[in-house]
Amino acid sequence: MEALKQKIRNEGTTIGKDIVKVDGFLNHQIDARFLERIGREFARRFDGCRIDRILTVEASGIAIAVGTAPFVGYPPVVFAKKAAPSTMTDGFYKVEARSFTKGKVSSLIVSEKYLLAGENVLILDDFLAYGEASLAMAELVRKAGSQVAGIGAVIEKGFQGGSDKLRAKGYRVESLAVIRKIEDGCITFDEDPQIEKEYAGV
Amino acid sequence: MEALKQKIRNEGTTIGKDIVKVDGFLNHQIDARFLERIGREFARRFDGCRIDRILTVEASGIAIAVGTAPFVGYPPVVFAKKAAPSTMTDGFYKVEARSFTKGKVSSLIVSEKYLLAGENVLILDDFLAYGEASLAMAELVRKAGSQVAGIGAVIEKGFQGGSDKLRAKGYRVESLAVIRKIEDGCITFDEDPQIEKEYAGV
Repeated sequence: MEALKQKIRNEGTTIGKDIVKVDGFLNHQIDARFLERIGREFARRFDGCRIDRILTVEASGIAIAVGTAPFVGYPPVVFAKKAAPSTMTDGFYKVEARSFTKGKVSSLIVSEKYLLAGENVLILDDFLAYGEASLAMAELVRKAGSQVAGIGAVIEKGFQGGSDKLRAKGYRVESLAVIRKIEDGCITFDEDPQIEKEYAGV
Repeated sequence: MEALKQKIRNEGTTIGKDIVKVDGFLNHQIDARFLERIGREFARRFDGCRIDRILTVEASGIAIAVGTAPFVGYPPVVFAKKAAPSTMTDGFYKVEARSFTKGKVSSLIVSEKYLLAGENVLILDDFLAYGEASLAMAELVRKAGSQVAGIGAVIEKGFQGGSDKLRAKGYRVESLAVIRKIEDGCITFDEDPQIEKEYAGV
């Protein structure tokens, strides 16, 4: 998604070789207008897939999931919580997710009421790095007896191997911008997939 | 907002006299279509106010802020974080917010880059109970040298006094549904303000 790459180049900041911060439009401050473009692009990438529900994880995933829902038929959005609130009195699914970035293991929790058997669930997140959060969400979907329609990330750090890991497990992965390398403050992206070029003139 | 009251009645669950859970459409599972109605209603309530920015707090506030932005001219949305991530290397504003509901004090943090002096900031949140989170957000706004355009809550627990406290400090408060009492699983709401009745036929 060329507009996204430009926005990352113009507004993102890098730390070392591994981290790119997009706090200016996605992770802290949110550009709601640009969010609609992200939502439209996810809808286009997953066009033809049945999407009964969108699953994401708090906090940064929420805006992306809510921003995408209108373009894929307003399915229910559910966000996994990182801790069970005291008011979560009913049964819930819980999995562990390791975060390489944060160097810790955290739980992802979803109430049993909001992941139903037999559904096709689109998993969305802001970043795809080592793929641990996506794997954990896929495991939540599996526990509920539903299946993964696909996994979408706004920004993939391709050099951290997450999408390879997910594709090896049979999941369809769509990342709107794939970063190949971060070096000396410069970000190198992968070429966009063919599908986008075909649509580029539309 | 009559549709919201109905939704709370139909889909909300109560715990004792103090807690109403709306996990089915707002706090865990999110109804993106209904979110647009919430956004439209906030826009109507704050019609005529200059809104340069929307401030909310992670995680449940994000969907509401992002859902409202399109109806008030797409101002930047910023969500306060409850902990400073390791990648937040620049300066930030930090205030303490007591949560009576959770029985603890937590920090609210916003990068200095995303609260600018001289702006009119609309504060939005899912619940207004004792008003501590809103007061903390107003304090963040004050620290940045900007001013509060108003404070909007989707659901106010009127019996916990938050809005009185905020109005006593001079803030304009708009709650889309005000709960007066929770008893034996029944929820009693305040009447909607006159402004809504006038528009009811539109």
